Amino acid sequence: MTTVPKGFGFAAIEGGLKYTGRLDLAMIVSDRPAATAGVFTTNTFKAAPVLHCRAALERSSRHRAILVNAGSANACTGLDGEKNCRETRELAAKAAGIPADEILTASTGVIGLQFDMEKWRSAVPSLGEQLGKSGPEDVARAIMTTDTVPKLVERTFTLSGGEVHMLGMCKGAGMICPNMATLLSFVCCDVDVDPEHWQAIFAYCADNSFNRITIDGDTSTNDTFIGMANGASGVKAESEEDLRTLCDELLKLSQELAYQIVQDAEGGTKVARIEVRGAADEVDAELVARAIADSPLVKTALFGCDANWGRIMCAAGYSGAQFDAHAVTLEIGGIRIFEKGMPVPGDMDALLEPVMAEQDILISVDLGAGSASAELLASDLTNEYVAINADYRS
Amino acid sequence: MTTVPKGFGFAAIEGGLKYTGRLDLAMIVSDRPAATAGVFTTNTFKAAPVLHCRAALERSSRHRAILVNAGSANACTGLDGEKNCRETRELAAKAAGIPADEILTASTGVIGLQFDMEKWRSAVPSLGEQLGKSGPEDVARAIMTTDTVPKLVERTFTLSGGEVHMLGMCKGAGMICPNMATLLSFVCCDVDVDPEHWQAIFAYCADNSFNRITIDGDTSTNDTFIGMANGASGVKAESEEDLRTLCDELLKLSQELAYQIVQDAEGGTKVARIEVRGAADEVDAELVARAIADSPLVKTALFGCDANWGRIMCAAGYSGAQFDAHAVTLEIGGIRIFEKGMPVPGDMDALLEPVMAEQDILISVDLGAGSASAELLASDLTNEYVAINADYRS
Repeated sequence: MTTVPKGFGFAAIEGGLKYTGRLDLAMIVSDRPAATAGVFTTNTFKAAPVLHCRAALERSSRHRAILVNAGSANACTGLDGEKNCRETRELAAKAAGIPADEILTASTGVIGLQFDMEKWRSAVPSLGEQLGKSGPEDVARAIMTTDTVPKLVERTFTLSGGEVHMLGMCKGAGMICPNMATLLSFVCCDVDVDPEHWQAIFAYCADNSFNRITIDGDTSTNDTFIGMANGASGVKAESEEDLRTLCDELLKLSQELAYQIVQDAEGGTKVARIEVRGAADEVDAELVARAIADSPLVKTALFGCDANWGRIMCAAGYSGAQFDAHAVTLEIGGIRIFEKGMPVPGDMDALLEPVMAEQDILISVDLGAGSASAELLASDLTNEYVAINADYRS
Repeated sequence: MTTVPKGFGFAAIEGGLKYTGRLDLAMIVSDRPAATAGVFTTNTFKAAPVLHCRAALERSSRHRAILVNAGSANACTGLDGEKNCRETRELAAKAAGIPADEILTASTGVIGLQFDMEKWRSAVPSLGEQLGKSGPEDVARAIMTTDTVPKLVERTFTLSGGEVHMLGMCKGAGMICPNMATLLSFVCCDVDVDPEHWQAIFAYCADNSFNRITIDGDTSTNDTFIGMANGASGVKAESEEDLRTLCDELLKLSQELAYQIVQDAEGGTKVARIEVRGAADEVDAELVARAIADSPLVKTALFGCDANWGRIMCAAGYSGAQFDAHAVTLEIGGIRIFEKGMPVPGDMDALLEPVMAEQDILISVDLGAGSASAELLASDLTNEYVAINADYRS
């Protein structure tokens, strides 16, 4: 049973907006204005709900609710899409008795479809009636697209003023690449924190969790990570120590959610942790980590449990990072495979066989060019990924 | 029957170097020193034969022969790999009666394996005996890895001094991404041309053919494009007009070979031509074209014959190029789908169904931000690609 942060209510219904017979429309409501932080996609084609959230967060740092739907992304839908997004907010405001400008929105699903507003108009009143009757698991289920499991993490921790509850949920599965991962993620917390501190903590945690995973290198139009801290616990996070604890807890929660996304990648069977060390600078470290993580040849080898390390070195080599090919070392699962420009002698395939059979695989590259580092979680590339994405719209 | 440029001889044998029961070792020999041009991979991990060719071309612009093997790439093999590469050259020199420093080398196959030199020592003498008995088709077959068909193009054309023959062959299939595509390609021509002109023409043609295709975005360690012009026709290319004709002919030949590589991509069923126009500059045009061409989601939609254009816009949006989302237009197969930030009204799926069913699909994006353009050929991403690459080493 999930411990719910104080002052938050949930609603999830079968809206029939695009899917039938499943939850696809949801709302998270705080009983009071909550300090609200957000991190959004960097894609030039920002979905209407993303444009709206960014504007709303510029206008005010306190909000009451998040309205979210799955099935249609409301991206690449132009001014009509923005108008529809506005109307969904107004419908929700009426149904939940909250001012429309205190409601944030998020959408996921097919790009380029306009909302069917008739369906929204008939669905949203039921959503209002459901408020407080659903649990957070229902919301986590309502936002799934090709996800196979709902993703929910909770944390309870103590600040100097007392106990605080934090709950996070997310959906991922495909179109997942850092900045941001293609994901929706929402965090509710009953801590009382200054909105500026909350946003700073939030951005730091996004950078070190969701922005450090990749499934297919596709950065979506809809990535949205919103956190509401409503203060309903009566516990303040003001001192440096309490803020640090809050940040640590949010980071753990975000990293756990990010891990779950890679673990539930479309068709994925592996979670590879790519560690790059010894880079000349952070940009180079990141270039190498992303080249390895996004290489279809590395990803298919992972799927095949094949310790085809040449593909890893090859990806590092075309990443654009500056390093000397003879200074590089590569380890998989802690086993040194490559150094001084050539393979370490020995029957590596035999040594690596048990390592490659695991779900979690650690790939460590030291470029020998400096002291900067980067880390990424990546999924593999499977038949199932292709099957899902060749068919996804139908 | 292939028309062979004058003065070239071919040898291909079953060397048993890694494969059994197939041609895997070959040689192309000119009966006189030929003006030799080369373009090679930009990967930091350059295979031993690539390092050797670059050094050899710096030393001299005229060479006699190319020695090539399939199965083992001799990449990430360090100093031992370079030593082995040198020995294979010496073996071939003895077998073919050519000075070792006039022989260029190329390899393709698994990265990180050392050559089995015992096998090389016993195979190369047979290769020498085969010289002149094989045809170019045999060489094209010997260099295949996961290619399903040998790739060979010939052209006959007339310069002011008479008729010239040109023959090109290549292998591709996987690890294919521009700069260079993962490929080996060799061109033989009996024209008499100054080595400097030949190299300039060659680099231009590589940029506009092999460097404009992508299969999986993986730039290999071994990409090699070598052209030998031996002058055996007695026809000179000296005048501006003749050089232009020679360049046009080499460009057509290279583009045809590049097309064949995409058509025979590992598991591929489609050839998408991505045209980007209206970019602020060429870098932006290229960024957008590559983001679309390499997006796993675009590639799987192509495989599924699904006109999921939102994924194309999404890729353009995360490419990093600067443009206004409302100024972009998208056409697939000449049908306008997206403009002014939203989809063109109409039943696009029905309209596009016959377009998406074709092998060749034209995707045209106008960014509305300037006048620069770029074009790429790309394959789709299929179950078969995953199956091939999950298993390739075994």
